Amino acid sequence: MQQYNWDINRADRTGVPEAVLCSSKSVQQIVEIIDLSITESRRILLTRLAKEKFDQIPSLIQQRLDYCSQSATAILDKVEFLDNEHKRVVIVTAGTSDMAVAKEVARTLEFSSIPADIICDVGVAGLWRLLDRIHEINTYPIVIACAGMEGAIFSVLAGLINTPLIAVPISVGYGVSNKGKTALESALASCAPGVLTVNIDNGFGAACAAIKMYNMFDKLRGNQYG
Amino acid sequence: MQQYNWDINRADRTGVPEAVLCSSKSVQQIVEIIDLSITESRRILLTRLAKEKFDQIPSLIQQRLDYCSQSATAILDKVEFLDNEHKRVVIVTAGTSDMAVAKEVARTLEFSSIPADIICDVGVAGLWRLLDRIHEINTYPIVIACAGMEGAIFSVLAGLINTPLIAVPISVGYGVSNKGKTALESALASCAPGVLTVNIDNGFGAACAAIKMYNMFDKLRGNQYG
Amino acid sequence: MQQYNWDINRADRTGVPEAVLCSSKSVQQIVEIIDLSITESRRILLTRLAKEKFDQIPSLIQQRLDYCSQSATAILDKVEFLDNEHKRVVIVTAGTSDMAVAKEVARTLEFSSIPADIICDVGVAGLWRLLDRIHEINTYPIVIACAGMEGAIFSVLAGLINTPLIAVPISVGYGVSNKGKTALESALASCAPGVLTVNIDNGFGAACAAIKMYNMFDKLRGNQYG
Amino acid sequence: MQQYNWDINRADRTGVPEAVLCSSKSVQQIVEIIDLSITESRRILLTRLAKEKFDQIPSLIQQRLDYCSQSATAILDKVEFLDNEHKRVVIVTAGTSDMAVAKEVARTLEFSSIPADIICDVGVAGLWRLLDRIHEINTYPIVIACAGMEGAIFSVLAGLINTPLIAVPISVGYGVSNKGKTALESALASCAPGVLTVNIDNGFGAACAAIKMYNMFDKLRGNQYG
Amino acid sequence: MQQYNWDINRADRTGVPEAVLCSSKSVQQIVEIIDLSITESRRILLTRLAKEKFDQIPSLIQQRLDYCSQSATAILDKVEFLDNEHKRVVIVTAGTSDMAVAKEVARTLEFSSIPADIICDVGVAGLWRLLDRIHEINTYPIVIACAGMEGAIFSVLAGLINTPLIAVPISVGYGVSNKGKTALESALASCAPGVLTVNIDNGFGAACAAIKMYNMFDKLRGNQYG
Amino acid sequence: MQQYNWDINRADRTGVPEAVLCSSKSVQQIVEIIDLSITESRRILLTRLAKEKFDQIPSLIQQRLDYCSQSATAILDKVEFLDNEHKRVVIVTAGTSDMAVAKEVARTLEFSSIPADIICDVGVAGLWRLLDRIHEINTYPIVIACAGMEGAIFSVLAGLINTPLIAVPISVGYGVSNKGKTALESALASCAPGVLTVNIDNGFGAACAAIKMYNMFDKLRGNQYG
Amino acid sequence: MQQYNWDINRADRTGVPEAVLCSSKSVQQIVEIIDLSITESRRILLTRLAKEKFDQIPSLIQQRLDYCSQSATAILDKVEFLDNEHKRVVIVTAGTSDMAVAKEVARTLEFSSIPADIICDVGVAGLWRLLDRIHEINTYPIVIACAGMEGAIFSVLAGLINTPLIAVPISVGYGVSNKGKTALESALASCAPGVLTVNIDNGFGAACAAIKMYNMFDKLRGNQYG
Amino acid sequence: MQQYNWDINRADRTGVPEAVLCSSKSVQQIVEIIDLSITESRRILLTRLAKEKFDQIPSLIQQRLDYCSQSATAILDKVEFLDNEHKRVVIVTAGTSDMAVAKEVARTLEFSSIPADIICDVGVAGLWRLLDRIHEINTYPIVIACAGMEGAIFSVLAGLINTPLIAVPISVGYGVSNKGKTALESALASCAPGVLTVNIDNGFGAACAAIKMYNMFDKLRGNQYG
Repeated sequence: MQQYNWDINRADRTGVPEAVLCSSKSVQQIVEIIDLSITESRRILLTRLAKEKFDQIPSLIQQRLDYCSQSATAILDKVEFLDNEHKRVVIVTAGTSDMAVAKEVARTLEFSSIPADIICDVGVAGLWRLLDRIHEINTYPIVIACAGMEGAIFSVLAGLINTPLIAVPISVGYGVSNKGKTALESALASCAPGVLTVNIDNGFGAACAAIKMYNMFDKLRGNQYG
Repeated sequence: MQQYNWDINRADRTGVPEAVLCSSKSVQQIVEIIDLSITESRRILLTRLAKEKFDQIPSLIQQRLDYCSQSATAILDKVEFLDNEHKRVVIVTAGTSDMAVAKEVARTLEFSSIPADIICDVGVAGLWRLLDRIHEINTYPIVIACAGMEGAIFSVLAGLINTPLIAVPISVGYGVSNKGKTALESALASCAPGVLTVNIDNGFGAACAAIKMYNMFDKLRGNQYG
Repeated sequence: MQQYNWDINRADRTGVPEAVLCSSKSVQQIVEIIDLSITESRRILLTRLAKEKFDQIPSLIQQRLDYCSQSATAILDKVEFLDNEHKRVVIVTAGTSDMAVAKEVARTLEFSSIPADIICDVGVAGLWRLLDRIHEINTYPIVIACAGMEGAIFSVLAGLINTPLIAVPISVGYGVSNKGKTALESALASCAPGVLTVNIDNGFGAACAAIKMYNMFDKLRGNQYG
Repeated sequence: MQQYNWDINRADRTGVPEAVLCSSKSVQQIVEIIDLSITESRRILLTRLAKEKFDQIPSLIQQRLDYCSQSATAILDKVEFLDNEHKRVVIVTAGTSDMAVAKEVARTLEFSSIPADIICDVGVAGLWRLLDRIHEINTYPIVIACAGMEGAIFSVLAGLINTPLIAVPISVGYGVSNKGKTALESALASCAPGVLTVNIDNGFGAACAAIKMYNMFDKLRGNQYG
Repeated sequence: MQQYNWDINRADRTGVPEAVLCSSKSVQQIVEIIDLSITESRRILLTRLAKEKFDQIPSLIQQRLDYCSQSATAILDKVEFLDNEHKRVVIVTAGTSDMAVAKEVARTLEFSSIPADIICDVGVAGLWRLLDRIHEINTYPIVIACAGMEGAIFSVLAGLINTPLIAVPISVGYGVSNKGKTALESALASCAPGVLTVNIDNGFGAACAAIKMYNMFDKLRGNQYG
Repeated sequence: MQQYNWDINRADRTGVPEAVLCSSKSVQQIVEIIDLSITESRRILLTRLAKEKFDQIPSLIQQRLDYCSQSATAILDKVEFLDNEHKRVVIVTAGTSDMAVAKEVARTLEFSSIPADIICDVGVAGLWRLLDRIHEINTYPIVIACAGMEGAIFSVLAGLINTPLIAVPISVGYGVSNKGKTALESALASCAPGVLTVNIDNGFGAACAAIKMYNMFDKLRGNQYG
Repeated sequence: MQQYNWDINRADRTGVPEAVLCSSKSVQQIVEIIDLSITESRRILLTRLAKEKFDQIPSLIQQRLDYCSQSATAILDKVEFLDNEHKRVVIVTAGTSDMAVAKEVARTLEFSSIPADIICDVGVAGLWRLLDRIHEINTYPIVIACAGMEGAIFSVLAGLINTPLIAVPISVGYGVSNKGKTALESALASCAPGVLTVNIDNGFGAACAAIKMYNMFDKLRGNQYG
Repeated sequence: MQQYNWDINRADRTGVPEAVLCSSKSVQQIVEIIDLSITESRRILLTRLAKEKFDQIPSLIQQRLDYCSQSATAILDKVEFLDNEHKRVVIVTAGTSDMAVAKEVARTLEFSSIPADIICDVGVAGLWRLLDRIHEINTYPIVIACAGMEGAIFSVLAGLINTPLIAVPISVGYGVSNKGKTALESALASCAPGVLTVNIDNGFGAACAAIKMYNMFDKLRGNQYG
């Protein structure tokens, strides 16, 4: 019995990339999915593909994949960037430990030809680091922030920019912040209006939301100028 | 001692409206804030202003307020809509009980001259109701969904549209869904990528996020065509 | 001291199979139980029997077992299906990761001579996949759905069929959905009336409930036509 | 704007009754819904209709309603029982405090012409009370048990009957059992296989599940004998 | 039977004031305690003494009390400030709704002859408000911050001052921040090292901790210069 | 620095045995403690001493220890039973998986010269197993029950005996019962009055409580007959 | 339909008193139960009978009841104490707010002819209060401690006495201690071995456990001296 | 891209040490940070540096580090103590298992030239151990207590000293105390006023708070005597 079932028109219908969450799949299942994708000429993004699993993929298939170990993502048949320069996203991280998820965001955007820059380790414990970069951050149409622990950066940032902020709570820390729950609730309960939140460590989801915002932009522009 | 402190340039800095959360303030505090706003010629939005509190406001001040009891919001010095027609938002509710929050969304957008339509009571238990309206929903650049109980509509909707979906979990129901926690976690854990979530019953926040998306649109358009 | 104590007339009294939950038992305990079952000519179903434990069972005993590694179940003395064709169950999964539990359901039913079909990977993020199969699903007297993450499929399915739906929440995902709690609460709080829920990952329990429904059918038929 | 939207073919599609959850609706909304139902000649069941709300309904409309204050339910246009005698359900309660929900179950079944008997106050603290009635309970094709506190009766009952058991956890008690959570988790974690669970206090849902089981019976019988 | 039992040497032993938590005591019990205090010439602080309870106290006793309704505290036999000017505390609040607890802090300090200033409504959503006052805040030896919602101000403040910060989480807000839990966990999980936390709404405890810090100062000064 | 500090008169003062919880101690620390005990001629009980740690203890010391791997306990200088026959305890387990903790209870009692019998695997899913033994159980002055999952046996037992029942919740199971929380809350919320509860898996504590009950007996007997 | 069902031989079977938990029963139900008890000449204990409900009971019936408003208990047909003097219990409370539950303990014991003394307001914040009384406490065969907040008294007491300690967590306090959960977990996690715990505010249950301990004493004494 | 960003003036601004939390960083990242610190002549403290990671650091760099395996901390370029003798801190632990965190406190203080003494294993189960040392403890200006399980020592200590107490809840134990949550809530809900709490296992944070208290002392002394 075939145990997966492509959502074949997802990209057309929802505008988000074809992606495979590998964390709960066996190497064999992952290889079958890549094989089928190659056969059907689909580009796909693989997320949460641990290094140990990647290493067990046959080398002929490995060669087709652009793998990034920090974000644990692979791209089948990476393409050059389209001319999309105005659609830019900045990813802001509170600490070094948030980089793995920040990279997952960047890779998902890259897969969809949207360039992303990362400004890292600007947590509010040393507020000047964030204030030094705030003008630069404010030049981007969309800001995605990654933070664990108490996630205070979400509120501070949201109070300083006038474009959407997507908060990605990160599961780093210990004690009460252990699993990212405090950062998540901090984003949801923010005193700064309009913070948008995704699941803990869900870099892929944050990137998809940014892509959908650019879809909205295209739709609006089409309505007005088309 | 004056017990509040205007964030005087909030609208300029972040693009979201001046608003006063009235639920934890006394009538006296609310009246002082309105008075000061009138003096300083500020337009403000009052949220979670219960009918009983509104009724205790002196009538001269009441007359300046446009009050809506279903959403428990008041607008000081309501203005006519600007010519903003292309910036539209649709608010989708799963059930009748979600209307109070849906109206809070609509009133906040209205305060910012963004027209909003409500499509109500299209929960997935009777899926045809949603499918009948999905084409219409897909014509809006931004969709805000309000749902309590298990919040299944968030995932179904997100899989059918290609623009941003903001999920507002609602605190209706009983047993495990009592306080909106299940709907909230449902939105965060959605199998459909890119769902954006705000706090339970936070209609105001969802509207602010939509406003920030339109700010992004204006910024981008400025960049490209300005 | 003998550390177990057969519930010797369970099948007669409750109609559900003799089964041994192996996850918290040592290999030695498991072997003793199988030995005793062979001696007493009992058929038994072993659940949550990890591959590593199975591999340590003496080969003479292994040969008596029909082992399935995906579901981690073993059947002692598998028998041919009885003529039970009208008693059918369909198992619907939201994603590929739900297959292990879906197979546990199927194996438990098979042990009781009830045929089960699996329709996999039809989660609501790509709703058309479910709608394409809904007519087929509706031909079965009992539907068992397995889903993790937000479990939205439980409500959608329950609104589309008129026979019992048993929801099995699955412990896949990360962040708020990590341990299956969100899918569980989603099933319990469903806006579609009549969803029946079992414990997280409890494929065995869901199958037993289906068996009891068919017992009810036999009892009723006996009453009416016997 | 009309704030509700009939799921007009629910009964045909899913076999469960048209029902209105009144707890989060205003009297005005409830009256409008009843009015519309009368106009459209629909029979409806109103649940969680508190006595104070019922008393505010205009008397002409009240007269059309069969109201039960213990279960807080009302039936619009009650009909005589159809000849459905073989489709019987027994409702077992652990204590006197579970009666309100037990009656909600009975009223929902009654609305659908399924007779229900209640055996009350047979909790396991005085086990003989349950054992005295177990033969009688075993004559019913479906058993629904209502219990708060620790819900031990669910496991004891499930081990003594061979037909489906639907557990309805009840929000009575104090301390750790305060909101019905312990009874709920007790049902889900039962050591007796096949217990089916619904949301806390969800008598309506338990009845709907029983109705769907009888739908299954009719479908099967149709298949075999039709 | 006498139902209370003075901890008669608490002030000497621990340096914190004699206080009576009134929330779970009857008016009769409170009156008896005040009577006894008057008889024994004790000064006491009454906390969480709701206005309705205060109003039921006989007027002869009322006259001995200095009551503050915003903080719900009363002081029996208020005394003039000792010459303690160098022992100052600043109380910073994120919003207007935090004032009740801020006043409980101030009143407890006042009872112990430590002057306290309140800087209110400087939450980080409008960061400039806090930055404008940070130099002033930094002139105080001890800072106590009161904040509800996500409590981001705790981390921002702690990163800007070099003296102790005591965080008092406040139970304002709704949804995930409803009971002060998010603000509490935010303070505990702060990325800024050295934040000290007390129970939700525990203004009295925060003040006692500040008093103990000044006790430490006196002890040290005694050691060095005595 | 010596990192432990004997509570040297614990047995005299509280009547419970000198014991060392080994789970969070290094092998080196454990060996030092045993050494010291030998030097000071103390008998001690070691609990949660995993087999891997035991195997690293020098053999000369090992020989002094009576080790039981199922309960992970060791007794230094085991002694013969005193003439204590009337002080008996029965340990009842719901399933085979509860044996490790049941043995910890028995070993702790044995260390204190109180004989204990174990009646295992008599969970309520097959109620006859318990009813068959209830007369025998009722001959013991103290009953300790060990159960995981939903812990229904606590209530059933407590309703059938007139002497104290100590409930030990066990951390077996999966899903909602995963960590023993459901069994714990079930014991606390029991509908049968007088169930006494200890921490999850705390066999040692349950045994100490039984020892204290026998201390009470000795004290009372002394008072009356001494 | 009669909605209650006497557990008619409870006292004989389990040794605990016939009692009626009134909190979730209507006045009418309570009156019916008392009536029936009078008819059948049963003595009963009514717990959680609020003053407002008691006041609605017909005066002829009221006169038969010995009512205590602080503990909200009533005794039907109070009898003189039997000659039971050696069976004594001491109830220790941490604060004045724990008195209501302490009285529920005392009244339940009194109903069963066991005298109880209360030592109140000896919480560990002023440790000398407890140490002053510890010799006296140690003369009782059974100690029941009532405490809310952090429940530290449970561990301190258990380390100072050699007879059983029953901990009753109390639902007083605010913030994290609000519902008695912290005191409950403190009792369960106590570093002093052998603390026995009952549900939050469950004074009745604690008394029943003490009664069962005295049953054990009688059984043992019978065995030895009978 | 450089993935860290020194908060270069942290010590000057906030008075707490430059520290690197190593638990979520790779060996490579840690080495780069140490390298950079050496280049820039910064002293740094490394916390949660597991032995396995330390062993992978190149030996030339290792030689610069003063490593302590019990506390998992390393100090780059340890210096001799300044003449700071009057600034002393005492660390009190409830049990042997709390030593790792106690050492993290001591090492952080040592890095900042503040001497710390540890008084270990004086938990309240054997209260005399604490009472024997209380006079000595009371000679220190600041007390830091480390305790897991139920954390009763926090309240007992706070009631016996008149200087600040910082509570560090420890993640030892099992069952309800498993992750340090009970000890944390016990500290927050303490009946003894003024207990200050930090995150579970956060020895570093407790030490930073003590440092900030001494900063306060210096500031005050400067004000008065400077």
